[in-house]
Amino acid sequence: MKSEVSTAWKGDMEFAAQVSGHELVIDASREDGGHDKGPRPKALLLAGLTGCTGMDVVSILRKMKEPVTWFEMKASAEVSEQHPKKYTSITLIYQFKKSDGLNPDNVTKACTLSQEKYCGVSAILKDSAPLDWRIEYI
Amino acid sequence: MKSEVSTAWKGDMEFAAQVSGHELVIDASREDGGHDKGPRPKALLLAGLTGCTGMDVVSILRKMKEPVTWFEMKASAEVSEQHPKKYTSITLIYQFKKSDGLNPDNVTKACTLSQEKYCGVSAILKDSAPLDWRIEYI
Repeated sequence: MKSEVSTAWKGDMEFAAQVSGHELVIDASREDGGHDKGPRPKALLLAGLTGCTGMDVVSILRKMKEPVTWFEMKASAEVSEQHPKKYTSITLIYQFKKSDGLNPDNVTKACTLSQEKYCGVSAILKDSAPLDWRIEYI
Repeated sequence: MKSEVSTAWKGDMEFAAQVSGHELVIDASREDGGHDKGPRPKALLLAGLTGCTGMDVVSILRKMKEPVTWFEMKASAEVSEQHPKKYTSITLIYQFKKSDGLNPDNVTKACTLSQEKYCGVSAILKDSAPLDWRIEYI
């Protein structure tokens, strides 16, 4: 299996990436010489993280017949001061609604399976920085 | 410094990530239970890679007064067969136009500086899989 991306420079700090048939504009902030026409490149790692583990968790909870109506994730990372500016730690929060009445053991199992077995993006990022995760009910 | 993303489940395999103030839709392919409304999550790592190193290279070539009018990158990765499906190798090609008449030593220097010193996304991904890169003139 192969993953592929083609990215074209559009001037200044703006790039247009062709990703799975979709165009994604990437740009720097105005302070960094860009025009903020799209997200910063490094933050795309966290977006990929939430998408990858989110799909796992939704799939597993569905198989468990858990009645999820709402599900969000917050991902954040500390970035090193020195070049190259890598993540030094990553925090991922899975959020569910109390009123959905989910079985917390099943939710914990779904998130744990994703984090320990299935999620490729989590596994890739964990090779570079510690990833702490937790579940919140709102 | 901190990098942050907030991602909401939109049903089936679709997620909307808020990344640097921009909404990014992430979705699975139809074969994987999605509706292909946005890119696959793992491919976002390669998009981030090209954006991050692309910004370095453009900035460095500008400082060198190189007359770049066109610049593209192709990034691809082999993905493991087993869970978690990580990248096993990454290839990055920097493409420039022959007719721009760039100084190839400066182009090599710009790409090398990004790969060896500045690019945080490259450094993160290299902690997980080997990254080979080269320059092409088209």
